Amino acid sequence: MKAKADAGNFFEDFKFGQAFRHATPRTLTEADAALNIALYGSRFAVNSSDVFARALGLPRAPFDDLLVFHVVIGKTVNDISLNAVANLGYAEFRWGVPVFPGDTLSVSSTVLGLRENSNRQSGVVWVRSVGVNQRAETVLDYVRWVMVHKRDPAAEVGAPLVPRTAASVAPADLVVPKLSMMGYDDEAAGSPYRWEDYAPGERIDHVSGVTLEDSDHMLSTRLYQNTARVHFDAHAGRNTRFVRRLAYGGHVISLARALSFNGLANGFRVAAINGGSHVGPTFGGDTIYAWSEILEKAVLPQRNDIGALRVRTIATKDHPCGDFPGKGGDGKHHPAAVLDLDYWLLMPRR
Amino acid sequence: MKAKADAGNFFEDFKFGQAFRHATPRTLTEADAALNIALYGSRFAVNSSDVFARALGLPRAPFDDLLVFHVVIGKTVNDISLNAVANLGYAEFRWGVPVFPGDTLSVSSTVLGLRENSNRQSGVVWVRSVGVNQRAETVLDYVRWVMVHKRDPAAEVGAPLVPRTAASVAPADLVVPKLSMMGYDDEAAGSPYRWEDYAPGERIDHVSGVTLEDSDHMLSTRLYQNTARVHFDAHAGRNTRFVRRLAYGGHVISLARALSFNGLANGFRVAAINGGSHVGPTFGGDTIYAWSEILEKAVLPQRNDIGALRVRTIATKDHPCGDFPGKGGDGKHHPAAVLDLDYWLLMPRR
Amino acid sequence: MKAKADAGNFFEDFKFGQAFRHATPRTLTEADAALNIALYGSRFAVNSSDVFARALGLPRAPFDDLLVFHVVIGKTVNDISLNAVANLGYAEFRWGVPVFPGDTLSVSSTVLGLRENSNRQSGVVWVRSVGVNQRAETVLDYVRWVMVHKRDPAAEVGAPLVPRTAASVAPADLVVPKLSMMGYDDEAAGSPYRWEDYAPGERIDHVSGVTLEDSDHMLSTRLYQNTARVHFDAHAGRNTRFVRRLAYGGHVISLARALSFNGLANGFRVAAINGGSHVGPTFGGDTIYAWSEILEKAVLPQRNDIGALRVRTIATKDHPCGDFPGKGGDGKHHPAAVLDLDYWLLMPRR
Repeated sequence: MKAKADAGNFFEDFKFGQAFRHATPRTLTEADAALNIALYGSRFAVNSSDVFARALGLPRAPFDDLLVFHVVIGKTVNDISLNAVANLGYAEFRWGVPVFPGDTLSVSSTVLGLRENSNRQSGVVWVRSVGVNQRAETVLDYVRWVMVHKRDPAAEVGAPLVPRTAASVAPADLVVPKLSMMGYDDEAAGSPYRWEDYAPGERIDHVSGVTLEDSDHMLSTRLYQNTARVHFDAHAGRNTRFVRRLAYGGHVISLARALSFNGLANGFRVAAINGGSHVGPTFGGDTIYAWSEILEKAVLPQRNDIGALRVRTIATKDHPCGDFPGKGGDGKHHPAAVLDLDYWLLMPRR
Repeated sequence: MKAKADAGNFFEDFKFGQAFRHATPRTLTEADAALNIALYGSRFAVNSSDVFARALGLPRAPFDDLLVFHVVIGKTVNDISLNAVANLGYAEFRWGVPVFPGDTLSVSSTVLGLRENSNRQSGVVWVRSVGVNQRAETVLDYVRWVMVHKRDPAAEVGAPLVPRTAASVAPADLVVPKLSMMGYDDEAAGSPYRWEDYAPGERIDHVSGVTLEDSDHMLSTRLYQNTARVHFDAHAGRNTRFVRRLAYGGHVISLARALSFNGLANGFRVAAINGGSHVGPTFGGDTIYAWSEILEKAVLPQRNDIGALRVRTIATKDHPCGDFPGKGGDGKHHPAAVLDLDYWLLMPRR
Repeated sequence: MKAKADAGNFFEDFKFGQAFRHATPRTLTEADAALNIALYGSRFAVNSSDVFARALGLPRAPFDDLLVFHVVIGKTVNDISLNAVANLGYAEFRWGVPVFPGDTLSVSSTVLGLRENSNRQSGVVWVRSVGVNQRAETVLDYVRWVMVHKRDPAAEVGAPLVPRTAASVAPADLVVPKLSMMGYDDEAAGSPYRWEDYAPGERIDHVSGVTLEDSDHMLSTRLYQNTARVHFDAHAGRNTRFVRRLAYGGHVISLARALSFNGLANGFRVAAINGGSHVGPTFGGDTIYAWSEILEKAVLPQRNDIGALRVRTIATKDHPCGDFPGKGGDGKHHPAAVLDLDYWLLMPRR
């Protein structure tokens, strides 16, 4: 009789072009929106107020874009990264139609590339994952690569196949939801600064810090039905090099996004992630701070009411960001850095 | 003037046949479903996706059966077990109609039996409790017995009356909700294994562990409006034999159910509990693991699309279950065991 | 280029008569009601059951009055009290129309008074704040005064202007929602005691205690989009006189209200706060207890079905309230006291 419990896929189980339809479709509700606020303290008006959202022509407040990220990526874990050593990178990360309470998300993935490590203990798996709603409209599409353990180091695997991924998402490829900036209320949104007010090179300290508790990151990670064991099992964690549970990296992304409200309040939509890395691990008890740099500004085709800001947000732990801790002359991150994220924000123009 | 605050009932306050209509009816909403996922990490598709549930002919995703358990039992605490020494057992536990967001649950109980302990400090109270929705349809019906302190050891009480309870719920008595397996999607549900694929005696290690935090079990226990003080008061807890708060036993049941997804993903409904015991106490910081044994298989009257599996799930703390820790030759549980639950699961047939 | 991140207003930034329209309108949903139960364990039937609420003529269960308080006050923090030294007092606190899931709250404030402290390091700011729903109906109106740091002690400020505030809200000014007590179900509500059963001077020990966790108070405070840094940043907290994070005082108010169910279960609506003070700080790990004294009873104009009870609730930490710990002969609070709140409750009459 076949063992019913699933130990997850190991590196040698993946084949080029292999397709996965991930389990447990999820209907998101108003409760996910409220928990997103409770877990991260997000204050972006478009995600908080139906009245604000309707003034933009939306049917009601859409979910925080990063909540969609967490739910989509969470569904892929059981098939793709249950035996991951590390989450190596993200590329071509693009949000599609907005997601509203009542929508049901399903996720599928395709293996884009495979490369065994020279020590033969593990290998890198590239997958493209696509999240869709109940009308099969894409809500998020991205490439992620992870290092995955081999079950058997001696297992023979195929020749390496490393996919090319774009260094960044082109502004013309950003999906702008159907909405109008005519009714955009800056005062309700919490900032007088629009796209024109930002300049490349500008740096913003988001000031506040939030201490992460084990209970918080487990609540969020379970909410996304993400089953990566390192986040939940303190007993097994004692025997790892960290000697404890590791917080889900996405929790830190959402904390940094919520902190970034102070300085980027009108950045009402995360439209794409160009790249990002979890520079250091975070644990219960760490206090997260963040700062951002404006990397680039772009106009959008056929939209003179919305512009795009390419932003790099760096989050740190136990280190306020008034000194803008970035990479040193040696190309290495500041020791307090835990996240380095390069993304496109949409913002109203004047 | 009569004291307004309630100290709960003591053993001598209960009378045979006494009826309670418990306080605080509760309208359950989508938020209870989301919190159930956030608190336990449950991944059963029928409770997670309206699209999946509608394909079975349900109006939308029903609540997790154990959430219904928690809400119903929570309402009985203030009248029945506020002064309990221990929760001794469950029997004839049978779920009725499914519960959906918007339903309002009310609970009543009747005293079925009473027996003073020989030390006269306490006694055992048997109650039958019934939870109903706003249409007076039964959602859950069960017998529970608890040991309750006497206010005054010298108080005279009546002759013992011990009710008979069934050793198990007969398969023919299980309530099968109105639904069809025609649209059951195994891939979305996360498992290729149906009723036919399981055999009595089969054992399944559910692999993962989840560390319980005090904040988590208090959130859930309050959500169910369960007022048992031992779960909330660390100050008073310092003077107990455990020197701290005790987690609500139902929290561990839900964690074990969520863990059991890995191996029993198509067990879409808990239809009955035959018996169960909280073998050991659990506290914040404990890591819960679980394994299951298939005890029995049963066909259901007039249903060839759904079968019943009688399952025994044992949860442990700080002890992974790859060695299937059960009762030893001496009839005693493994020292790591915290829960031993015998229940009926419904599962689609081929 | 102007710094985009907001450091909040300092004492010298406030002007008499200055008006603020606070950021981030918020649509409250069923999830806020469920989280209110999960965070505090509230059991008041009118806020828990749509069936119970409809029997009173309400469209469905309204939100807990204190949840409305938290959301309204939370929105004012960023403009008013981000640089506060202390929250000094509340007055003329009056609830208006009930708030239901789907309502969107917005908040504005006006500066009523200003007085620099003699040391010139800080000053007291009085504001009147008004929360309204999407139909511009008032849901809460109050005066709060806070001590706020000066950015520059040498900054010149205007002459002191100290507003008069009422010592209490007159019973005739209490807003009674449109509802009828005809269908009020005492048994479902959990208490046989109505307005007639209480007498001035009566004291009620609410018995139970609840231990506050850092994770809990941060979840609630973020849910209200309250950005006061002292509640979230354990890293910065290490360098304060408390050496840690401070729990949001409103969290303790809601815990005390939930505990007060045991003795005041039919006090179905908090109609006004006459005054209150956070007598001592609370931290993760503290166990909160509460007791109440009936200060006064009042009939309401043109309502013979509802009466008002003026109640004083005192909450303590790590000290059960069976000894009714109040102010000593020296006028000082008991050392365990953390909250002293004077408010009007509405309760059905016979």
